[in-house]
Amino acid sequence: MRFRIDLNSDLGESFGAYSIGMDEKIIPLISSANVACGFHASDPLVMAKTIALAKAAGIQIGAHPGFPDLQGFGRRNLSLSLEEAKAYTLYQISALAGMCKAQGVKLRHVKAHGALYNMAAADFALSKAICEAAAAFDSGLIILGLSGSETIRAANACGLKAAQEVFADRGYEENGTLVARNKDGAFIHDENEAVSRVVRIIKEGLVKSVNGVDIPLKADSVCVHGDGVQALLFVEKIRAAFSEEGIEIWGL
Amino acid sequence: MRFRIDLNSDLGESFGAYSIGMDEKIIPLISSANVACGFHASDPLVMAKTIALAKAAGIQIGAHPGFPDLQGFGRRNLSLSLEEAKAYTLYQISALAGMCKAQGVKLRHVKAHGALYNMAAADFALSKAICEAAAAFDSGLIILGLSGSETIRAANACGLKAAQEVFADRGYEENGTLVARNKDGAFIHDENEAVSRVVRIIKEGLVKSVNGVDIPLKADSVCVHGDGVQALLFVEKIRAAFSEEGIEIWGL
Amino acid sequence: MRFRIDLNSDLGESFGAYSIGMDEKIIPLISSANVACGFHASDPLVMAKTIALAKAAGIQIGAHPGFPDLQGFGRRNLSLSLEEAKAYTLYQISALAGMCKAQGVKLRHVKAHGALYNMAAADFALSKAICEAAAAFDSGLIILGLSGSETIRAANACGLKAAQEVFADRGYEENGTLVARNKDGAFIHDENEAVSRVVRIIKEGLVKSVNGVDIPLKADSVCVHGDGVQALLFVEKIRAAFSEEGIEIWGL
Amino acid sequence: MRFRIDLNSDLGESFGAYSIGMDEKIIPLISSANVACGFHASDPLVMAKTIALAKAAGIQIGAHPGFPDLQGFGRRNLSLSLEEAKAYTLYQISALAGMCKAQGVKLRHVKAHGALYNMAAADFALSKAICEAAAAFDSGLIILGLSGSETIRAANACGLKAAQEVFADRGYEENGTLVARNKDGAFIHDENEAVSRVVRIIKEGLVKSVNGVDIPLKADSVCVHGDGVQALLFVEKIRAAFSEEGIEIWGL
Repeated sequence: MRFRIDLNSDLGESFGAYSIGMDEKIIPLISSANVACGFHASDPLVMAKTIALAKAAGIQIGAHPGFPDLQGFGRRNLSLSLEEAKAYTLYQISALAGMCKAQGVKLRHVKAHGALYNMAAADFALSKAICEAAAAFDSGLIILGLSGSETIRAANACGLKAAQEVFADRGYEENGTLVARNKDGAFIHDENEAVSRVVRIIKEGLVKSVNGVDIPLKADSVCVHGDGVQALLFVEKIRAAFSEEGIEIWGL
Repeated sequence: MRFRIDLNSDLGESFGAYSIGMDEKIIPLISSANVACGFHASDPLVMAKTIALAKAAGIQIGAHPGFPDLQGFGRRNLSLSLEEAKAYTLYQISALAGMCKAQGVKLRHVKAHGALYNMAAADFALSKAICEAAAAFDSGLIILGLSGSETIRAANACGLKAAQEVFADRGYEENGTLVARNKDGAFIHDENEAVSRVVRIIKEGLVKSVNGVDIPLKADSVCVHGDGVQALLFVEKIRAAFSEEGIEIWGL
Repeated sequence: MRFRIDLNSDLGESFGAYSIGMDEKIIPLISSANVACGFHASDPLVMAKTIALAKAAGIQIGAHPGFPDLQGFGRRNLSLSLEEAKAYTLYQISALAGMCKAQGVKLRHVKAHGALYNMAAADFALSKAICEAAAAFDSGLIILGLSGSETIRAANACGLKAAQEVFADRGYEENGTLVARNKDGAFIHDENEAVSRVVRIIKEGLVKSVNGVDIPLKADSVCVHGDGVQALLFVEKIRAAFSEEGIEIWGL
Repeated sequence: MRFRIDLNSDLGESFGAYSIGMDEKIIPLISSANVACGFHASDPLVMAKTIALAKAAGIQIGAHPGFPDLQGFGRRNLSLSLEEAKAYTLYQISALAGMCKAQGVKLRHVKAHGALYNMAAADFALSKAICEAAAAFDSGLIILGLSGSETIRAANACGLKAAQEVFADRGYEENGTLVARNKDGAFIHDENEAVSRVVRIIKEGLVKSVNGVDIPLKADSVCVHGDGVQALLFVEKIRAAFSEEGIEIWGL
């Protein structure tokens, strides 16, 4: 049997004079870049540079729309109407897609950012608003969402291809949701354990929940960070493990 | 001989709870809508509604990119680098074009807004940055710029079709530039005179400059306002005159 | 027995080229102005003008801090940390208070805006963050909050004077909270009924809840709107009723 | 004869998730902190933290107002009206001063940031708008401006105390203005030379211009950077030289 997985990372989050992330270092190590679109992070210059880096590395580009909350980096819940959520998502997808078009590359996927991602994962209607925006723009776009979440259901309901995302460094509840960040077991601090868990998710479709019970978990893509030396080393570790285990890294 | 002209107006400038302009009233009277893109005015909901109105009326849609200065409504000069000007323009064109695509219509032209329009009219390099952004996105886009300005030259230099814009209510210097707003003769206050001037520009290609000398002026499009009852009445007046004079109104 | 009440209104909500509200008309009719501080509405020019109008009319000035969400006019819930809520409130109070100082008037009260007001009314910790910001700036500031709400409790806990606000045009649940906007009975549409209710609240301290039961309701201030001709007529109606009923209008 | 000088630095420029500067490291080495106020950089949380750091170190705090251009970090020219410049400055001074008051410290000076600083240095009317804002808020505020510039003249005209600022790492034209950044001689790259120049300015009131001619230059304060290890080392070097030369560091 052949195993393959996408490695995605949230990138292009610098803004004006402010720099975040080690995009040039992480891009060669991953297969899909989720590029911020100017609402929670990024600006048009940063977007153009990030697209150029991703294009040069030959990796896939996705839009990473977020709440219009630069000061909160899109990490604070905001009660948008569904109409607003759809229009804001469409605007951000369009902006990034057009900037990709200008460089001769194609936008391939959409992954919501931060609080929008988390709220959508638990809210079918919100996920549907996001997916409808994507579908209205291009019915070939792939929705990258939390594995097993409402976002995946909504993508399917909208006739879009869905890619299920898992996290190497997060614990899972018995029902397949992520352990909340303020609870014990939210994070897998041991890197080797994190790598082993990911390999098992990919090969066996199983992960040990925070209660110690094996649960099924589907993975099309693994999210990795690119915002520090330690994060980069972890990505190299995960790549080495994949190589050893015969897991191929490929784009969405 | 057959005469025809485009009537364009700057629209979609409302923002959140703030409302500006009588878009629903002006749209049926014009042939091209320049839609704000969220930097100096507008938001994604307003953009979606404006596109829907323009689509329903069957008029042409253009992007109206401006400086990132909502507080100043894009009317204050801002010293962008050429790289910034290009990226900001591309972002705004892309956002609006994608929102058009989602509604099954096509973005047809680009007209810079306010201070960006005025600065570009006198600055070939800045105009070229704007035109390069448009060309990178879609080489079929038309650049709507001040008649005889650097913007028209830059559009030609970039291989884009240019449409020359004239103003019914503004005076012209002997060299073809607009009389500065703070100088005598900047505005044509008499509506009948304004209408006569526009008809003459279209039919004879001539306008009387502020010094009383006839100068040549090329017109593909006339800019009209839609932000008040008086403005609407003027558009109706100009339409009536065009009808009487055998001047056809058509889109860019 | 002598009755007196404050009439407050949310003002100074224009922004740049965008105009909202009939501030010049409403200010002479009320006793306290809640002035937006630039986060959800207003800008420094608008603030300066609003302070000047309130000063000229001799009415009291309060800060009206809101969420940093201009696009949503501060009406969308935003999950700030308590530290953020406190710092954002302090910033806004300070900005307005300093602009008052520059015109020789003194900031007297603080009333949260929109979603921040509503969230705080039901959340003691959030209200406390707001009150702590006010107290840190000036322990003489009055907190204007929803009658009977957590905001009133928090103001008391912080040693600040609290003023209880009631709404002429809103229905009340049996427990004293406002009927949610999407439920039947949320709004009192009949103006005469609205006026009678307010008079009764002031004179008897009672209002008929949406279930038809009389409940106690304390009122130091009545909120009125200033954003349209109808709103102004209503304020004149309420003032006439107060005059007839011997209810004096006074500042907080 | 006794020599003394202020060492000032622009601080508190982080924003939300974005971090800039090594404020904690530089603050103990300087005597005056110019704190960004949320227009070109900073946010209320950052301001509160920066004030706390400056208070703990016992250094003086000044407001560092800039253009409302976060994306450009306040470094791009913006054509504000004088009324806008005054109101924007007053708003920013007020916000920071109130946040200082809440921590029991007093705002002592005002230094414009970036493009606003540079434009004001050459423009008496713009400088006057800034100084009028400061004077309206507190006539005891000190204006920190480019040595010999229009800002110093305007401060004097407004009856404010002015402090003249010099730059260790910048070249001067024969007329006392800074050599433009894109010209030869704009920067003094040799650190020892930079230190010697500053010492001479302080002790002799003279500096060698880019043309090799000694010109008079008055210095009340030297601007130093705090945004990198190299910058910190330079501040330590300058402090060592001051100590050796008997130059005392003191606040404005």
